[in-house]
Amino acid sequence: MTAGGRFDERRRRAGRAVAEAGLDGYLVTPGPDLRYLTGYDALPLERLTMLRVAPDLDPVMLVPRLERAAAEAAEGIAGVQIATWSDGDDPYAAAAALMGPGRYALTDRTWAVHVLAFQEVARDTRLVAAGRALPPLRAVKDADELSALERAGAEADATFEAMAARPFAGRTERDIAAELAELLRANGHDTVDFTIVGSGPNGASPHHDASERRIRPGEAVVLDFGGFAAGYGSDVTRTVVVGEPPDGFEDVFETVRRAQQAAFDAVRPGVPCRDVDRAARDVIAEAGFGERFIHRTGHGIGLETHEPPYIVETNESPLEEGMVFSIEPGVYLEGRFGVRIEDIVAVTADGARRFNEAPRDLRVVD
Amino acid sequence: MTAGGRFDERRRRAGRAVAEAGLDGYLVTPGPDLRYLTGYDALPLERLTMLRVAPDLDPVMLVPRLERAAAEAAEGIAGVQIATWSDGDDPYAAAAALMGPGRYALTDRTWAVHVLAFQEVARDTRLVAAGRALPPLRAVKDADELSALERAGAEADATFEAMAARPFAGRTERDIAAELAELLRANGHDTVDFTIVGSGPNGASPHHDASERRIRPGEAVVLDFGGFAAGYGSDVTRTVVVGEPPDGFEDVFETVRRAQQAAFDAVRPGVPCRDVDRAARDVIAEAGFGERFIHRTGHGIGLETHEPPYIVETNESPLEEGMVFSIEPGVYLEGRFGVRIEDIVAVTADGARRFNEAPRDLRVVD
Repeated sequence: MTAGGRFDERRRRAGRAVAEAGLDGYLVTPGPDLRYLTGYDALPLERLTMLRVAPDLDPVMLVPRLERAAAEAAEGIAGVQIATWSDGDDPYAAAAALMGPGRYALTDRTWAVHVLAFQEVARDTRLVAAGRALPPLRAVKDADELSALERAGAEADATFEAMAARPFAGRTERDIAAELAELLRANGHDTVDFTIVGSGPNGASPHHDASERRIRPGEAVVLDFGGFAAGYGSDVTRTVVVGEPPDGFEDVFETVRRAQQAAFDAVRPGVPCRDVDRAARDVIAEAGFGERFIHRTGHGIGLETHEPPYIVETNESPLEEGMVFSIEPGVYLEGRFGVRIEDIVAVTADGARRFNEAPRDLRVVD
Repeated sequence: MTAGGRFDERRRRAGRAVAEAGLDGYLVTPGPDLRYLTGYDALPLERLTMLRVAPDLDPVMLVPRLERAAAEAAEGIAGVQIATWSDGDDPYAAAAALMGPGRYALTDRTWAVHVLAFQEVARDTRLVAAGRALPPLRAVKDADELSALERAGAEADATFEAMAARPFAGRTERDIAAELAELLRANGHDTVDFTIVGSGPNGASPHHDASERRIRPGEAVVLDFGGFAAGYGSDVTRTVVVGEPPDGFEDVFETVRRAQQAAFDAVRPGVPCRDVDRAARDVIAEAGFGERFIHRTGHGIGLETHEPPYIVETNESPLEEGMVFSIEPGVYLEGRFGVRIEDIVAVTADGARRFNEAPRDLRVVD
């Protein structure tokens, strides 16, 4: 399929979702949905940019005049009519012309200054947050997206391998984090999103960032990092030990490794998201660490690091072929250490495949 | 004044501004105003965080329970009552309890998902965008803010000096930009916001970023960069030449230098912002380049790189002691080169002082 065809198809699918949700249109402001539907990577700015997708109307995008050239250069813009407004014009009057009477979904993160102005000028239009009114548009990935996510995963794996070959003892968490960021870029990432380095007791805090704490021999270190390559995200976690593992570590590590495998084995089309969470949780609970697994099992990933589907106990939605998400169970022993193992996984026709293949067995570093 | 006293005073001033604008309160979501009023540097997330400031009521901040500890650790939080909501609660019902009937200003960049939910639960509350309903709260800086901006300016100056001592000829714009970013951090900045490197004809595009173009001897290069140190911004521009300047360059450079000085000389309390713009514009127009000065003269800077006051022809607001902004006239000759000179300037009791002191005379680099 050509690039243009791919974006056309996405917009048609969005139009059908709008109709099925009983809405009259979807007003898309800058962010991942706009990139998904047009390829246009606009910054969210005071100056209004907005795409309208509607079931029976052609797509139209309103842009500031001085950004027209940038919008026209977007990969998936063919087939979208571009309307412009100039400094001095009222952009909201122009936007109102794209809304009729009825209910329109609006990008969740649209700024209040725009929302309140829309409501002033389009009094017959009722706005609803897209995240509440529409099913997720981007959860099922197409072939190009799967390739991009596979590439991002391979770059993250290469980053882990390079990092694990370097010394840890005596260095600060922040120093390791800076090196992870450098390696992600060196391996092809365009941007680095996060670099969690949790050594010793800091590993027991799942969202610990990276501190000036110096890593010592005999400690476990949680490395959880990711970024973006060609627009698509990576997110991988490995827990390493510096020399001899601390007391009780190997038992916990093996439990988490088995939990991660059990969740992976549970993935196939039609299985509810919560069953994948449950598969990991059961292994950890049986080993007696149920209370120490204090977060969900995973989250979707694509143009954003966290997006649907969420792999959480309360999510009964079924998995579909082409969905991509993390599987990242963990056990956190306060004051001692944490263990988390995370891969990005894609749902295939009859099961799953991993986009992270860095070894999951216990890795000893220097 | 203690840190607590400083933030108390800011909140009282915000309360008075709310009353003077005929509003009942200001609902502040994560961003620079929240940092300014509480010191709390929250990320804008799906989970609702919101401060209410009202003329006759004590300030209250609603935060997700799992972020309570982070909120309580904020520098200026003493005197703010903290209310929490937990996953599973309805945060909007909790927010509605902080709104009465009447008109409330709301942070301009609050996400639509929150705005629309507020409107569902607080039907007697009319929301208006703060940027339209309230005067800017942060335009006049206090002594600590002035020190922070002075420090950021000195670090940017040191970055320019280090850069100007290095070779330019034969290197790409992107390479120079990466070095500027590295130097900003090495000189003490926490983050880099932008690094514009416009060589030869690229210098004629004011917002040109940095490309793979290789810089050649005999070319002018516009360097415009900045970032944040301890929360406050820097933004400086110098235009250098690689060896011999191109034809006609010295005349343009001298015009821009005089325009920048004329604008600086026009600054003192009570002078309308537009007069500062006019002072620069007149010099450039008299030299015959009026049509080639294609942007405003400057913008305020503080917790954000661009904030009020805007130094633009249409802004009749008077300058006040403690305001801080850029003075950055430029002349852009398409296909040839651009010249821009920019300093950050603070309004003093009887004039102005610069936070950038890197020499403004023509600098020849290798």
